[in-house]
Amino acid sequence: MNQELKNRKSNIRNLFDEYGVDAILLACNMSLLYVSGRIISGYIYLSRDADMMFVKRPNNLKGDGIYSIRKPEQIQEILTQAGIPAPATLALEADELTYSEYTRLAACFPNSKILPAATQIIHRARTIKSALELDIFRRTGLAHTKAYNRIPSLFRPGMTDVELSIEIEHAMRQEGMLGQIRIFGQSMELFMGSLLAGDNAAAPSPYDFALGGAGTDASLPVGANGTPLLEGHSLMVDIGGNLNGYLSDMSRTYSVGRLPDEAYAAHEACLAVQKAFEENARPGVIAQDLYQMALEIVTKAGFADYFMGTVQKAGFIGHGIGLELNEQPVFAPRSKTRLECGMVFALEPKIVLPGIGPVGTENSWIVNSDKLEKITLCPDEIIDL
Amino acid sequence: MNQELKNRKSNIRNLFDEYGVDAILLACNMSLLYVSGRIISGYIYLSRDADMMFVKRPNNLKGDGIYSIRKPEQIQEILTQAGIPAPATLALEADELTYSEYTRLAACFPNSKILPAATQIIHRARTIKSALELDIFRRTGLAHTKAYNRIPSLFRPGMTDVELSIEIEHAMRQEGMLGQIRIFGQSMELFMGSLLAGDNAAAPSPYDFALGGAGTDASLPVGANGTPLLEGHSLMVDIGGNLNGYLSDMSRTYSVGRLPDEAYAAHEACLAVQKAFEENARPGVIAQDLYQMALEIVTKAGFADYFMGTVQKAGFIGHGIGLELNEQPVFAPRSKTRLECGMVFALEPKIVLPGIGPVGTENSWIVNSDKLEKITLCPDEIIDL
Repeated sequence: MNQELKNRKSNIRNLFDEYGVDAILLACNMSLLYVSGRIISGYIYLSRDADMMFVKRPNNLKGDGIYSIRKPEQIQEILTQAGIPAPATLALEADELTYSEYTRLAACFPNSKILPAATQIIHRARTIKSALELDIFRRTGLAHTKAYNRIPSLFRPGMTDVELSIEIEHAMRQEGMLGQIRIFGQSMELFMGSLLAGDNAAAPSPYDFALGGAGTDASLPVGANGTPLLEGHSLMVDIGGNLNGYLSDMSRTYSVGRLPDEAYAAHEACLAVQKAFEENARPGVIAQDLYQMALEIVTKAGFADYFMGTVQKAGFIGHGIGLELNEQPVFAPRSKTRLECGMVFALEPKIVLPGIGPVGTENSWIVNSDKLEKITLCPDEIIDL
Repeated sequence: MNQELKNRKSNIRNLFDEYGVDAILLACNMSLLYVSGRIISGYIYLSRDADMMFVKRPNNLKGDGIYSIRKPEQIQEILTQAGIPAPATLALEADELTYSEYTRLAACFPNSKILPAATQIIHRARTIKSALELDIFRRTGLAHTKAYNRIPSLFRPGMTDVELSIEIEHAMRQEGMLGQIRIFGQSMELFMGSLLAGDNAAAPSPYDFALGGAGTDASLPVGANGTPLLEGHSLMVDIGGNLNGYLSDMSRTYSVGRLPDEAYAAHEACLAVQKAFEENARPGVIAQDLYQMALEIVTKAGFADYFMGTVQKAGFIGHGIGLELNEQPVFAPRSKTRLECGMVFALEPKIVLPGIGPVGTENSWIVNSDKLEKITLCPDEIIDL
């Protein structure tokens, strides 16, 4: 882990020039976890030469470069005592710190130019996963697969979507999942994931997920809404995995009895999108080109109107995953991100058929030089419960 | 609900003068939910005369004063078209919006003086709960009580803390809980709650909860850590309730077999703190005075060194609850908040005994004019599993 953390810091420092930054001060949980391997209440200061941790809580952390503080105003003084000059330019996490926290930290460095680039720098570094991180993804995918393989045995006739969801959440926890699903930004929320049955899959939500769902309460308007799981309808399980901090994303479609033929045709169109990604998503390919490719496949199959929702359509068909659910790359019409080895993403081609429900699939993939590697391993076909 | 929302807006507007504010623009989920009864991706603009909602998602919201937008830069133009002059002073949510979002919204109002007061104004309004909100709390407390009453039947000899926690989480969901536990600020995280057994209750966490616990993974260092539930040790369940957005907080102590006498004495000291609150916490009383009263009771009983943790002590013994877990009032050494009718808080006197584990209790309370009203109704004694 020591070498891993050294590499991460080195990757971050390698971005300093591009952003015109001499040092970076990190205060947000996922940044701290990424850079130090642990979450603290405190700050990490990283310059080309210095690497220091200022800790408010927990109070039992000791070690080289670890300083106990009560408030961020002490940081500058400690740096001075350590003979470290104020950085000419200092980056803060402008896209994650609150305005109040940002301005307070900026005031602690009156002689530095403050740049809002720290979130972008850390996100850039986090986009390419290391061998160690990829191993965590693979293990998470296996646990996710084990839990989903139990879904048919958790179903009982007469259940609602909420009731089945509760049993799957329980199975996920039993397979070792932490339960916590982290989403970047304050505006998107989710409890573990969603189960969407029948026409609830078309209900628009305020959140920017691939599909919405009405939810059961105005305070969490997403996902299962109490729909009974009835004969002839489909349902989609999209409950997130998190075994050791890194998320796996997998959706599967189930049916209660036989669905209308149209549903299987639509599902095949989604699998064709996935297959086209498997064949074409390689380092160097641009995300928006893969998005266009997918849209053409679905349009040719006659399902464009139902692709990624009906009343409200998602603007993307896939997204990077890592410590958070919404990382780079994003597969969307204007996404210029070029795929690179070590990226990890979820691809989720989904079609919502009025009167039937959702079909399609979602898997998590590692970008290797010669192929995509699937880490969520349940069969992709529609399973009859 | 219409009258309820009118009252909330009126309470918010009544704070405008105190903060020198002509209008407020809200963008954060809990503010939006509080003011409009729903979560949107968008903004609410509230001045003395105007009340408008600007919605990005969901795309199917219609009604008087609801405007569909793609980006916040359209707001000013819509206000102008509606004949609403730019506010002289506009408050934004400085303690919740990111620096980037805040500065973007501020730039949408170039002719207004921007004040960082919106979070404080909304939090002030949210501190005093309405009759409707109190009813939700009572129903949540009942569901919480039902789930906790099942805990003895969920225990099986040989279980670890994690295994029992998973079963309690499952029971909470079965009793209708949404699972989501919201905490103000980006730095504190929790999956549903914690179960702390034996010496793990003394493990410091980076989060500012009453007790910590090591957790099972560096990415979520809080709560259960895999400790086997052994004879002669205590465990404390502190899993949060959320039936309809409003949180109930309840902790209970359990034992596996008989504990050393010291544990029952320490538990009694915690119950004495709770009783003193029941007798003395009335409108007009200052939070820090109640904190001091509690500290004196525990000190006199001889447990001061173990009160609210050992290695790392919490700086508070109770906290307001509402849509989020950390609201006003806070019962801490320097908390000048004066209790008022309609406040709701959790009081959690807890003692951690080395070699035994945690004891104490936590209940959620409504401040009425003549008495505290308990909404979490399980028996307070230590239950032998």
